[in-house]
Amino acid sequence: MENKFFTEKDLENLLGKEDEKKTSLNIIPVGISGRHVHLSKEHLEILFGKDYELTPIKNLTQPGQFASKETVTLAGPKSVIENVRIIGPVRSKTQVEILTSDAFKLGLKPVVRLSGHLEGTPGITIIGKKGTVVLDEGVIVSQRHIHLNEEQGRERNLKNGDVVKLRTRGIRSAILDNVSVRVGDNGYLDCHLDQEEANALGLNSKSYVEIVR
Amino acid sequence: MENKFFTEKDLENLLGKEDEKKTSLNIIPVGISGRHVHLSKEHLEILFGKDYELTPIKNLTQPGQFASKETVTLAGPKSVIENVRIIGPVRSKTQVEILTSDAFKLGLKPVVRLSGHLEGTPGITIIGKKGTVVLDEGVIVSQRHIHLNEEQGRERNLKNGDVVKLRTRGIRSAILDNVSVRVGDNGYLDCHLDQEEANALGLNSKSYVEIVR
Repeated sequence: MENKFFTEKDLENLLGKEDEKKTSLNIIPVGISGRHVHLSKEHLEILFGKDYELTPIKNLTQPGQFASKETVTLAGPKSVIENVRIIGPVRSKTQVEILTSDAFKLGLKPVVRLSGHLEGTPGITIIGKKGTVVLDEGVIVSQRHIHLNEEQGRERNLKNGDVVKLRTRGIRSAILDNVSVRVGDNGYLDCHLDQEEANALGLNSKSYVEIVR
Repeated sequence: MENKFFTEKDLENLLGKEDEKKTSLNIIPVGISGRHVHLSKEHLEILFGKDYELTPIKNLTQPGQFASKETVTLAGPKSVIENVRIIGPVRSKTQVEILTSDAFKLGLKPVVRLSGHLEGTPGITIIGKKGTVVLDEGVIVSQRHIHLNEEQGRERNLKNGDVVKLRTRGIRSAILDNVSVRVGDNGYLDCHLDQEEANALGLNSKSYVEIVR
């Protein structure tokens, strides 16, 4: 499999060979994220009205998560980005995930963080149909990470909070450091990269990468 | 220097220590490229008029190369991108360098290639002030590469056509495979990455990377 992408077929082939089971367990699919917003219930109501509920239009790979019909406008000191998708359901805290190029466009410092680690991150103005929210912090560039459930973690000898490396294939192949492991009750097995990381590595949503330690 | 970017100061510090000379020789600056177009004389004249000459507005790091005042529009099957900078001087063959995200936007397949290797690459329509050129091929996503001159190559035991790896630092650090070495008479020492690669690695135009083999 040198010098090309892992495909779903490669994985099928590998999974058929018992002696390559260990290798195949470490080969996992890629999930690619673009810019999006998670909203608290409070902020959703300011932006769209009291008791407003998001309208799911597409389920995402992580169970329970969905892309909603609703979008917002992000306004930074330098410019705005329209039609930014809201990911539901609502969360305890509002979080805006953008690409590094979005940060430059908006006039914000790109700060790479895991989801939920918002201390000291830039703020932004979020504009909805019915109102505006001014955040003091909460804008991150997503730090790459692997999602899996308890059993998948045990099979791979990985636990929540571990940091591993990833090997990718193809003409833009690389070994990526600092990949965080997030083990959750119902995590769907994949590695989350943002769109710029995927493009820089020549990966797409059908690609696979290999966990190395 | 673990876990942060190389800065110009890091390099100065390293260069001051004779016993780290070998390491320091392998630490080189990053040059970041966005989308741009190189034009043949023939195509420049179709796009801007007979005997037209490009107007330099900024010299680039590679000697003799400049950003010109003039821009063009790129039109693909799916959409257009306006205000794309022309890099002068004219070349023997027209070449369009875009980001992977540009390829998706335009509706083209992103094909990663070194400059000048255009066989089998997608075509595109280029629109200028006075005319339009329809290219059958010539659109590439730039393959990362290192520029240096003969003496810098000798010092580092690198020759034209070599392929090395690069180590980067910081929270998005990685080891990049398939980095081509281009030794030229008057090459300026740097490593060319495109804007998406730089963003994905957390690098900027003041960053340094390390050649590893």
